Amino acid sequence: MSIRIGIFGYGNLGRGVESAIRQNPDMELVAVFTRRDPATMKIRTEGVPVYHADKAPEMADKIDVMILCGGSATDLPVQTPALAKYFNVIDSFDTHAKIPEHFAAVDAVAKESGKVGIISVGWDPGMFSLNRLFGGVILPDGKDYTFWGKGVSQGHSDAIRRIEGVADAKQYTIPVESALEAVRSGANPELTTREKHTRECFVVAKDGADKAKIEEEIKTMPNYFADYDTTVNFISQEELNEKHGGIPHGGFVIRSGKTGFEGEHTHIIEYSLKLDSNPEFTSSVIVAYARAAYRMNKEGMSGCKTVFDVAPAYLSPKTGAELRKELL
Amino acid sequence: MSIRIGIFGYGNLGRGVESAIRQNPDMELVAVFTRRDPATMKIRTEGVPVYHADKAPEMADKIDVMILCGGSATDLPVQTPALAKYFNVIDSFDTHAKIPEHFAAVDAVAKESGKVGIISVGWDPGMFSLNRLFGGVILPDGKDYTFWGKGVSQGHSDAIRRIEGVADAKQYTIPVESALEAVRSGANPELTTREKHTRECFVVAKDGADKAKIEEEIKTMPNYFADYDTTVNFISQEELNEKHGGIPHGGFVIRSGKTGFEGEHTHIIEYSLKLDSNPEFTSSVIVAYARAAYRMNKEGMSGCKTVFDVAPAYLSPKTGAELRKELL
Repeated sequence: MSIRIGIFGYGNLGRGVESAIRQNPDMELVAVFTRRDPATMKIRTEGVPVYHADKAPEMADKIDVMILCGGSATDLPVQTPALAKYFNVIDSFDTHAKIPEHFAAVDAVAKESGKVGIISVGWDPGMFSLNRLFGGVILPDGKDYTFWGKGVSQGHSDAIRRIEGVADAKQYTIPVESALEAVRSGANPELTTREKHTRECFVVAKDGADKAKIEEEIKTMPNYFADYDTTVNFISQEELNEKHGGIPHGGFVIRSGKTGFEGEHTHIIEYSLKLDSNPEFTSSVIVAYARAAYRMNKEGMSGCKTVFDVAPAYLSPKTGAELRKELL
Repeated sequence: MSIRIGIFGYGNLGRGVESAIRQNPDMELVAVFTRRDPATMKIRTEGVPVYHADKAPEMADKIDVMILCGGSATDLPVQTPALAKYFNVIDSFDTHAKIPEHFAAVDAVAKESGKVGIISVGWDPGMFSLNRLFGGVILPDGKDYTFWGKGVSQGHSDAIRRIEGVADAKQYTIPVESALEAVRSGANPELTTREKHTRECFVVAKDGADKAKIEEEIKTMPNYFADYDTTVNFISQEELNEKHGGIPHGGFVIRSGKTGFEGEHTHIIEYSLKLDSNPEFTSSVIVAYARAAYRMNKEGMSGCKTVFDVAPAYLSPKTGAELRKELL
């Protein structure tokens, strides 16, 4: 019997979850929920209904895990606790500063309903968080570094698009190679924001716009660009569409630390991702954790969890004996 | 109150555990056990007694976790189950083919005694196994690759030393850079043993030994060298001691896989280690899992576990709230 999955919200992430479910034969997509008019929605999987979000509670006994695919700013803080009343839930809540609050809200509901909610699943937060934890416990006398990119930052691209005279834009975050090398050498450097990443912008200006002014506005924008070395390239809409249409991303978590009675041995642990599609990779992580939520709940667990609380074996459809034989 | 640790066996790994415990303020070394005459043993930690192995059961109520530092060939298959009767135990059993059997033996005893035993802890098996699992569940439509090195293989060095005319030897396993690059490209290449690793040997010949014959014997040795491109360098004992005295190691686990409705997006997950001291890094992983064994047992769990069964939060001295705030 398959694990019955619902998708709540059908943007890039929802479509990524839909395609990831096809790669996991022990799972089945039961329904997609949307706040738009379901009649206007076309999904990729034949025979799967699209319902209005309000209908979700009626499906409580037909769905094992509801995967929330909304945004962290306003959707998830409301939706994840609300749906944890009826379903095991997974989200990719990524507003780091508000995780404790979100955890508490989901935990209260999930403990009451007897369901499992796993929040902040993806790659950062998610796989990168796990690697920061593993690095720190293995090499307590050390330091960790997270680099992002090369990849598209949606938030920074949006910020550029809000500037007057800008028709469209794409922003790439790029780790500084020399900083990466310094970290890999075990030197444990202190690195400023500017030393770790650069920002590269591809901007389509509207006809007659003042390009010098746009460039100046980008480079001096506080929080987003002012602390970075930023380059701005003006290109045509055609070139933007053709060469910068994807949503690649990735990054590095590196732990460098010392062992031995005199700290005489240096070790480097490096975890890196190179992703053609940020939302599809995030979705793929989420789907694996959906399996874990289902199985943990089957064993009687409830309440809010994060990737830190999930024993890795729960992520796999293989039995413990298979895992030990094939992967250990 | 500290977690009270015992070390059973005091070779490279035992000394590594001893130094790792010093980096973890929530742990305390209580005693070292040896099959040698304890009176002849000198350990690095002031005031910690060395007892004969036979005395271990008497210490059952003074030690929370016994860390087994013997060899996988003959020590651990006997010692780990025997000591699981009295203690939570951790070992680094690494004979992959015999893991199911070893697991069953430890599980039977640990379930009976109500203790937790975590076997096959280290980096391979251990952290590499975890990364094979994570890679496979996130990217089911993919392939994983494990490369080892550059590093010293103890088993291969020993095999060379057994050849007639050899006074001493050190063997390095080296991943082939072009194979690594092919894997990182997402091409999912089929790689033969020879294409993945080369072997480099530094050999001290005895006076008057036939070097050509030694080289031939090494290069044609079945299982160990015959399937690899092997280079043999004859050097002096002084040079061997000076330049090849360390025990560095490391390696790579790379998962390459596709997502999307048409498999149109490629993703690369890479985990790598660069270790100055193989036994000290292994010990550092083991000590983190000793904390997990203690805490899982405190919560009422028992039986045999592997890294797959341990929720990462158990590895850290931080609380769940601290982990979510600082690392997620």
